[in-house]
Amino acid sequence: MKVNGKPCRTIWQHPDDPRIIQIIDQRHLPHRFVIENLATVTDFAAAIREMHVRGAGLIGATAGFGIYCAAITAPDEPAGFTAFITEAAVRLQKTRPTASNLAWAMQRMQKAMAGEEDVAAKRQIALTEARAIADEDADFCRQIGEHGLAVIREISRRKNGRPVNILTHCNAGWLAFVDFGSATAPIYAAHAAGIPVHVWVDETRPWLQGAKLTAWELAQEGIPHTLIADNTGGHLMQHGLVDMVITGTDRTTRCGDVANKIGTYLKALAAHDNHIPFYVALPSSTFDWTICDGLKDIPIEERSGEEVCYINGKTEGGGVTRISIAPEGCRAANYAFDVTPARLVTGLISERGIMLAAEEDILRLYPEHG
Amino acid sequence: MKVNGKPCRTIWQHPDDPRIIQIIDQRHLPHRFVIENLATVTDFAAAIREMHVRGAGLIGATAGFGIYCAAITAPDEPAGFTAFITEAAVRLQKTRPTASNLAWAMQRMQKAMAGEEDVAAKRQIALTEARAIADEDADFCRQIGEHGLAVIREISRRKNGRPVNILTHCNAGWLAFVDFGSATAPIYAAHAAGIPVHVWVDETRPWLQGAKLTAWELAQEGIPHTLIADNTGGHLMQHGLVDMVITGTDRTTRCGDVANKIGTYLKALAAHDNHIPFYVALPSSTFDWTICDGLKDIPIEERSGEEVCYINGKTEGGGVTRISIAPEGCRAANYAFDVTPARLVTGLISERGIMLAAEEDILRLYPEHG
Repeated sequence: MKVNGKPCRTIWQHPDDPRIIQIIDQRHLPHRFVIENLATVTDFAAAIREMHVRGAGLIGATAGFGIYCAAITAPDEPAGFTAFITEAAVRLQKTRPTASNLAWAMQRMQKAMAGEEDVAAKRQIALTEARAIADEDADFCRQIGEHGLAVIREISRRKNGRPVNILTHCNAGWLAFVDFGSATAPIYAAHAAGIPVHVWVDETRPWLQGAKLTAWELAQEGIPHTLIADNTGGHLMQHGLVDMVITGTDRTTRCGDVANKIGTYLKALAAHDNHIPFYVALPSSTFDWTICDGLKDIPIEERSGEEVCYINGKTEGGGVTRISIAPEGCRAANYAFDVTPARLVTGLISERGIMLAAEEDILRLYPEHG
Repeated sequence: MKVNGKPCRTIWQHPDDPRIIQIIDQRHLPHRFVIENLATVTDFAAAIREMHVRGAGLIGATAGFGIYCAAITAPDEPAGFTAFITEAAVRLQKTRPTASNLAWAMQRMQKAMAGEEDVAAKRQIALTEARAIADEDADFCRQIGEHGLAVIREISRRKNGRPVNILTHCNAGWLAFVDFGSATAPIYAAHAAGIPVHVWVDETRPWLQGAKLTAWELAQEGIPHTLIADNTGGHLMQHGLVDMVITGTDRTTRCGDVANKIGTYLKALAAHDNHIPFYVALPSSTFDWTICDGLKDIPIEERSGEEVCYINGKTEGGGVTRISIAPEGCRAANYAFDVTPARLVTGLISERGIMLAAEEDILRLYPEHG
């Protein structure tokens, strides 16, 4: 998508030195746009661990390029090369142990190189494979956009071309992937197709991914949007101000239960209560084919209460600082995700198409998991 | 209730000079506890308009004492006295034009003085009436606490004395009234009766009344509590971590629809979905007997989007500052309230007792409005 009017992905090779990988250091958004160079495994590990990059798709792509950089810097001698790569993979995987795309990318990179004996050839394969991971991620998101576009087009038709109001929660935008995003892809596709859209952006406490990332990327793309407190969506839906909800998902069961950013369930309840379609956009990699009951079987990450009690932002002087919003010593709980049961989900949109959030219809598009 | 271990109301006469009224300047909470002296109509108007005090009950009580202070400073000559009081009432009422308790207190004060010719006697009546408004407010809240205590006691019994987990939204605490609060009164009553309780405190974006006021007053009273982002309640309810919800209300229809702080509706939906009792505590003065359908007939105040884009808090250096959390120029919408339909409300708790959120049962306790 675009930054300051120019096309941009979230990760790319340095134009002057392809051995250096560049990322957007997302910790500084929306206040500053900072590009960071990554050249060593240590650089990549820090970028993932300290959340310069985040989001399932982007973490996978970053890990892939991390292994490519490891391959460049590894010894030329074959046994030493393989040992170096294995150690790099272990280091990278430890940075976000629960990110399933991270483990998946490590395995894919190592498997691709395993078929070749020659170290120079392995290095070439590493680059090809890392690029393929990134390109596939972007391509899957683009396809999600095409499928979701049909839903938005139909609502626009029913509204006689008046803007389609779409509510989203958290950031399932291009910043969380390599390009396009999952939940945002249909929005960008509609905008590109000339269909007027307007996005209600949940600020998404405690981390404020909506206020800091989604609002920023929509503004860069010129999509009309309005920031709201997370409390607001129900009221908007009661008054006919929301035509559809689209969110991402971190993990989706084979029966269609969806684990996504905390608060998603509340919006799904409100959409259901007001007969508003609630869609979840996802690349196939977020399906967990081993489980059905999300409430019972998806463990929910608990993070530090500090993220609730303290908020980062820009001061009037232009610096970025952290303020406390609670009484000193206040205890806070910080569950990162909740589970939206399939009964509240109108449809899932993956790169393969749109399906009901029900095992039978999911398996229609994924017969290999039947 | 208590501040630093000593009993405290939200408004009182200065112990050394009863012509001066003292309030807690709540804008500084939870970071500083500041007592402010009010002696002139200008002082009272500023305190109400600039939200040194807020909450229906406390605004009414403050306005009552404002008229008392006007009476002290008014001319001794009867016609001049009355003109002065009328002008003061108009000034005070303009400070928060939609606060129904404000208009009500103005009328009550003026009506009480109208029956007396002598200015000295009018002044005495003004003091008596202002005190009565404050005392009644505290007494009604105390009675709400007694009625709500029965509900908590029953849950505690079913849990064999394990702590009763109560979720609340916004601040319907003693800081919003003269003492005890509405939603908090049953909690304080249970704590005083030795029933173990634990409160989940919604931070309540955008103003953060939960983080800044409810968490503070619960801490002062020694009530175990945990601060959460507003997104969290649904997840807690799905996992059996909430036994009941109690909120306040700003306006309640004769059919039991409830207008309360934005986001209340989302918690009511989650409580309903998880079969958790959802109670609303209110002094009778919040009933609007002229309307039934809250969604149709209660206008919702829209406030500045700045309250969403900027957050106040304490820096590490100890000062209080304002930070921006959104991209520069980001548009934000800020609806202050939403309406929870009666079908999602388990019961209303007023000083008269507990009733179903249904016209017939409300009129059982309020036959004069039948």
